[in-house]
Amino acid sequence: MRIIAIDPGYERLGVAIIEKGRVDGDTTASGENKFNSQKERLLFSECFKTKKSLPFVERLELVGREVSRVIDQYTPRELAIENLFFETNQKTAMRVAETRGAILYQARLSGLEIFEYTPLQIKVATTGYGKATKNQVLSMITRLISGAENVKQDDEMDAIAVGLAHFAHTRH
Amino acid sequence: MRIIAIDPGYERLGVAIIEKGRVDGDTTASGENKFNSQKERLLFSECFKTKKSLPFVERLELVGREVSRVIDQYTPRELAIENLFFETNQKTAMRVAETRGAILYQARLSGLEIFEYTPLQIKVATTGYGKATKNQVLSMITRLISGAENVKQDDEMDAIAVGLAHFAHTRH
Repeated sequence: MRIIAIDPGYERLGVAIIEKGRVDGDTTASGENKFNSQKERLLFSECFKTKKSLPFVERLELVGREVSRVIDQYTPRELAIENLFFETNQKTAMRVAETRGAILYQARLSGLEIFEYTPLQIKVATTGYGKATKNQVLSMITRLISGAENVKQDDEMDAIAVGLAHFAHTRH
Repeated sequence: MRIIAIDPGYERLGVAIIEKGRVDGDTTASGENKFNSQKERLLFSECFKTKKSLPFVERLELVGREVSRVIDQYTPRELAIENLFFETNQKTAMRVAETRGAILYQARLSGLEIFEYTPLQIKVATTGYGKATKNQVLSMITRLISGAENVKQDDEMDAIAVGLAHFAHTRH
């Protein structure tokens, strides 16, 4: 099962492609499966940025087109995305919500099923603890998933976290 | 000049196609132009509704696809849309913002330029008065535009109002 996981934003967009389950040919020299088939692995992640100098609607378009591009390249079947987050800045909150809307719409156009998770669900799924700090979530991610050792950007890690929450909830 | 004007929503979406300028063949029996070339006229309007029983993302998709359909049919060059409106219900506000995002994104995919107007700008453009009531705005609309006499739904009227605000601001 392959999914796309997204931490939405129009300045920085976190994107991750995560797969779970055995993949043919992924064996070590001794013939064992290189990845635990119960463990998720990261196939791709990025922090996609748009320029501050661009009008908002152009940044929105770039984000939607990037989501479309990654879906076309990796053909995931489901989208996991972080749910409504209430920013302290009301205008920013509305712009992020609009960006989420463009992402949800593009995912539907691309034929994906959509699953939304709250920050609380993500914390519980990754650490087992609803009051986990951001650092606790981050340190759990590299233990839970293979291939994320070199991910540095927060937004990519946040995308991976929502993807792991999705696998925890759906038991694929 | 032909535009699409939208009052965004995922339960009810107001859509209007408005044109300004002389149209060949639109003459009366006496040979005069049937419409004042300085007056906008309504070519199409609708209140597009989605079912409450559907999941939000499906309603979002239906709204975006309807916007795409109307753009394909009427080939407007610009989108005028009402700007961020702060609902008292935070969750509804976020869902409406997401719907706006899907509409903005579809309009960009369709190659349209986008113009956003605040409720204040719409009131001033239609009535000349920033504290105009909703009824004052509505009663001005039918005087300012031809073809809107039979429009009954509030959402259609709101879409027409934002379209008129756009023509007032851009002086097409």
